[in-house]
Amino acid sequence: MKVAVVGIGYWGPNLVRNFINHQSINEVCCYDISKSRLEVACDRFPMITTVKTYDQILNDPMIQAVAIATPVATHFDLARQALECGKHVFVEKPLTATAKEAQQLIDLAQDKSLRLMVDHIFVYNGAVKKIKEIIESGEIGEIMYFDAVRINLGLFQHDVNVIWDLAPHDLSILGYLCDKDPEAVSAIGKRHFSELEDIAYLTLLYEKDCIAHLHANWLAPIKMRVILIGGTQKMIVYDEMETTEKVKVYDKGVEVTGREGVYKTLIQYRTGDVFVPTFDTVEPLACAVSEFVNSIENNTVPLTDGHSGLRVVRILEAAERSIKQNGAIIGLHED
Amino acid sequence: MKVAVVGIGYWGPNLVRNFINHQSINEVCCYDISKSRLEVACDRFPMITTVKTYDQILNDPMIQAVAIATPVATHFDLARQALECGKHVFVEKPLTATAKEAQQLIDLAQDKSLRLMVDHIFVYNGAVKKIKEIIESGEIGEIMYFDAVRINLGLFQHDVNVIWDLAPHDLSILGYLCDKDPEAVSAIGKRHFSELEDIAYLTLLYEKDCIAHLHANWLAPIKMRVILIGGTQKMIVYDEMETTEKVKVYDKGVEVTGREGVYKTLIQYRTGDVFVPTFDTVEPLACAVSEFVNSIENNTVPLTDGHSGLRVVRILEAAERSIKQNGAIIGLHED
Amino acid sequence: MKVAVVGIGYWGPNLVRNFINHQSINEVCCYDISKSRLEVACDRFPMITTVKTYDQILNDPMIQAVAIATPVATHFDLARQALECGKHVFVEKPLTATAKEAQQLIDLAQDKSLRLMVDHIFVYNGAVKKIKEIIESGEIGEIMYFDAVRINLGLFQHDVNVIWDLAPHDLSILGYLCDKDPEAVSAIGKRHFSELEDIAYLTLLYEKDCIAHLHANWLAPIKMRVILIGGTQKMIVYDEMETTEKVKVYDKGVEVTGREGVYKTLIQYRTGDVFVPTFDTVEPLACAVSEFVNSIENNTVPLTDGHSGLRVVRILEAAERSIKQNGAIIGLHED
Amino acid sequence: MKVAVVGIGYWGPNLVRNFINHQSINEVCCYDISKSRLEVACDRFPMITTVKTYDQILNDPMIQAVAIATPVATHFDLARQALECGKHVFVEKPLTATAKEAQQLIDLAQDKSLRLMVDHIFVYNGAVKKIKEIIESGEIGEIMYFDAVRINLGLFQHDVNVIWDLAPHDLSILGYLCDKDPEAVSAIGKRHFSELEDIAYLTLLYEKDCIAHLHANWLAPIKMRVILIGGTQKMIVYDEMETTEKVKVYDKGVEVTGREGVYKTLIQYRTGDVFVPTFDTVEPLACAVSEFVNSIENNTVPLTDGHSGLRVVRILEAAERSIKQNGAIIGLHED
Repeated sequence: MKVAVVGIGYWGPNLVRNFINHQSINEVCCYDISKSRLEVACDRFPMITTVKTYDQILNDPMIQAVAIATPVATHFDLARQALECGKHVFVEKPLTATAKEAQQLIDLAQDKSLRLMVDHIFVYNGAVKKIKEIIESGEIGEIMYFDAVRINLGLFQHDVNVIWDLAPHDLSILGYLCDKDPEAVSAIGKRHFSELEDIAYLTLLYEKDCIAHLHANWLAPIKMRVILIGGTQKMIVYDEMETTEKVKVYDKGVEVTGREGVYKTLIQYRTGDVFVPTFDTVEPLACAVSEFVNSIENNTVPLTDGHSGLRVVRILEAAERSIKQNGAIIGLHED
Repeated sequence: MKVAVVGIGYWGPNLVRNFINHQSINEVCCYDISKSRLEVACDRFPMITTVKTYDQILNDPMIQAVAIATPVATHFDLARQALECGKHVFVEKPLTATAKEAQQLIDLAQDKSLRLMVDHIFVYNGAVKKIKEIIESGEIGEIMYFDAVRINLGLFQHDVNVIWDLAPHDLSILGYLCDKDPEAVSAIGKRHFSELEDIAYLTLLYEKDCIAHLHANWLAPIKMRVILIGGTQKMIVYDEMETTEKVKVYDKGVEVTGREGVYKTLIQYRTGDVFVPTFDTVEPLACAVSEFVNSIENNTVPLTDGHSGLRVVRILEAAERSIKQNGAIIGLHED
Repeated sequence: MKVAVVGIGYWGPNLVRNFINHQSINEVCCYDISKSRLEVACDRFPMITTVKTYDQILNDPMIQAVAIATPVATHFDLARQALECGKHVFVEKPLTATAKEAQQLIDLAQDKSLRLMVDHIFVYNGAVKKIKEIIESGEIGEIMYFDAVRINLGLFQHDVNVIWDLAPHDLSILGYLCDKDPEAVSAIGKRHFSELEDIAYLTLLYEKDCIAHLHANWLAPIKMRVILIGGTQKMIVYDEMETTEKVKVYDKGVEVTGREGVYKTLIQYRTGDVFVPTFDTVEPLACAVSEFVNSIENNTVPLTDGHSGLRVVRILEAAERSIKQNGAIIGLHED
Repeated sequence: MKVAVVGIGYWGPNLVRNFINHQSINEVCCYDISKSRLEVACDRFPMITTVKTYDQILNDPMIQAVAIATPVATHFDLARQALECGKHVFVEKPLTATAKEAQQLIDLAQDKSLRLMVDHIFVYNGAVKKIKEIIESGEIGEIMYFDAVRINLGLFQHDVNVIWDLAPHDLSILGYLCDKDPEAVSAIGKRHFSELEDIAYLTLLYEKDCIAHLHANWLAPIKMRVILIGGTQKMIVYDEMETTEKVKVYDKGVEVTGREGVYKTLIQYRTGDVFVPTFDTVEPLACAVSEFVNSIENNTVPLTDGHSGLRVVRILEAAERSIKQNGAIIGLHED
């Protein structure tokens, strides 16, 4: 199979490397608007071929699939053209700049019977897959809350704010782990150095009392990547910055033991052992590339298909609207 | 000087111990509605005296000051009566259950020329005092954000929700460190086991783009007490759970180096040394008790006077209102 | 039961507090050569009685047991006199300054049918008891090594070097956890500020290839209390400085999978889950005091009897000899 | 300049990559006894050339320098032949299997006016260079001790024991940081799975009371890379496993304030701020390769020349001798 990679900036070379390493891929063709970036790629990966225009990719009947790692604003057009030319498409997160665009790509792929996949990389991370397994086993009970902190100094993006940059990771993890969709979004963000928010807090409201909260920050002195998942039976801490003990399952909880009068609920705490499971440490991008190639070869729906991408974009869009309205609650089902 | 301590439950004994240890105090008289709690206190502190009614305290002309460590709902009445009887008053945080009550206590104390102090204990913590010193030196620049995480499993309170329980600490630290007051509050909270919220997120909005955010949680598997303070020049991390290196000053920042066109701000990161200052490790409550006694002896205004208490209560009240309105922005200056 | 506590310096008050709290003890009598220390103790514990000479304790027929928390050099004489006067004896670690003295106390206690117990406090620590349980279950396999690091800045002792000060903790833990005794000792130590070693490394050699190693250090900038236990099946890390997750059991190991030629052993690593057990968090000294009182009441042998004390002292003595001979191997069975 | 890399196993590819990236190198020729390893290298680095025998390298007059990354036992012969053929030589640590061999290589390089460099990689590590700078500034005072822990599970070597595998790192750091040479060595090691020691403790004795101690272990459940350096004025902790705050300088110390009688030294502790310096994060191997190329181009002595290599090998040799004699002290100046 021959694939094309479009956009060889920060993330693109990782795509190139993983496509090269995949046994079903026998040619990787690259394109970037920057000639110098293409040259650097050729130095590093002498086996790739390059083209000078995107049209060359679109018109090459040998190219079955296109992977897009360009700025968000360009995702839609590039993906649309590729789909229209009959190519399967793999797009970096977030899938598109608007939900409307995402829906159009989904429809187009459907019409053409092509695969559309978004690179929600953390869904292919061994730690996250292990957490999914634990949640599905039922041992943590009902999820009461999901709290994610994803902060560090920089990398300021020029095209999107901190929410569009960092939150897709947590939103895709959340969408993967949690079987219910949020009802509404509220977000507050502040900008200090440019026209784009560099710190933001995003809250997702669910049916009943489940809540999810994200702290995304480009201005933090320390790098934190911590997700807390509070279940009614057990609780999970996923700390991506830990060298090996990234996932911890706490046998901790609260039990209602009775009531005293109308207002006083009697409560007891339970503190048991902690369990730190091992998990598979294959490079997540290799898994994602495999998933994409498999979905083409076997005509299956990839785990992170267009709908996953759409769900995340819909939340991002609502969050942005909420930020502009100072944290107003934006329903997710109205449109 | 003779003082009375009212309420000998969880925190009261610490007050008793610190009053006993203060050289200006020669008698500590205790009162609690629970006879058995009073007996336990007598076993532990054989030198205290006890009384059977609060009136005995109010009517004892030798008692100059009353310290109140009872449930929040009772603070106002107990403090009001003590002030009316000419006694200086020290109240556990939060000062009162409503801003109106706090204002009344302030006015009453003013009328009677008595001291009214709230036990914002963290203001007397060596780490926080050191941070104050660093901020006042100007070296961190303007504060862009303040982010506090105060989470752990339990202790569920029966009378107040997680915000009234945990947020006073962070709000009093914030009020002490930051010379400007917030303009508005937004808060979202959820309850899972009782009628009281057990997880809540609170956002404070300031003039310009300064923002403060608190995560208060009784349902977390791990205990975290972390405050990030983002300055334009440097950034501070205060981790109360660290054994010794609780305060770290990061010489990190962002610099705008130019612009490319209209939208693209060119930005550079600066990463320098980290500095971990020592600070005084005297028990904060001993400092607070000293501040109170000094303010009586020298007729001075205590650092955490009624107005500090009021500022915190006003925010808590607004936060509660916001929670009921699903995170609506509540202005702090309207009433 | 009436007990006496002798020596009310750094550790003595903890003994006093725990004896007071024990339900079988109705009177605690204290003695110290320093009058001012006795006065401080009376202020803190108004319910104690005091005496002016050790003889008053020895001659008081109501005193059944004596707890000794004085400098090491005085342990023997104080304990010997108490035993001779028919009193049960509890001695701070290390039991005595020489193995010969320890043996004499053991013999004397035996003759008089009295209890002799040494305060090897860590044997009563919930974390250590949990580790014992795990080792006894057989799940970690054979112990290959035991590595202990016990370092921090100060507290310099005036009467004993860093080994006599810190190593008794690790040696008593080791003696409790491991069913075999070491064959020989080698130790190297250095002194920098006084006549007493302030940094030392101690190695214990066992039958086969089991080895134990201790790093004791009064000159370290950070406080570390870490014990590694390498089993053939699993490995344990016990980090006393961790707030809650002090004990971790690693399902890790090495497996010999074959051989290539004469010299090349083929080896495979196994890395499984980590398990962090909860354990009982009762104050260890309360357990130790209970063990002592029980042993008197029920005429049983306390867990850390004179023989435990002797085993530790014998190693300390050999270590000191080794230090003087620059690390020479000193056999433990020769005398 | 054209260089050859011999041995393309675990570490060799890193050498290849760094030589390729160095601007003065225009050709990298590789050789390995394993044809398949050579093929893998060609796949990864299509720009390299390969040869089928070592002689082809020796006989190629265009090759100015040879880098050797083969098993330790082969270092001497390969290096000797390269030097004899007029080539500069870069050898992986440890330089040779015996001090005698190291001395012969030094002499040979000297005779031929060729560069002989050993890859003591940590000497080129930014953190270590920063520590060197701090020590040289005099601010930590005299070094009292150096304590290194380098432990983890595996990687068992087939040709050398844990000391020859891990200790060269710490010994080279120590040699670089400390201006005095050790007087003697004592080491104890144990083997559990093969004929090679998998856990070892090594002590270096210096004039006066300075001491260095290394814990090298292939059987530890956690990876630790911690070096403590105790100075009379300040102390340093270097924790290689920390993500960013690897070097901490503690303003802590002990001061002798007087004496009481003959035996009692009065001592005071000083605890000040902690300083966490930034340091350059260039890949150490890139610096080492640069140092080597520069030393050839400018005819200078590389920082880690044959003598550094010899010093380390001499200690390793003595340590091995000591292990065989159960920890006997082996002088370093006798031979």
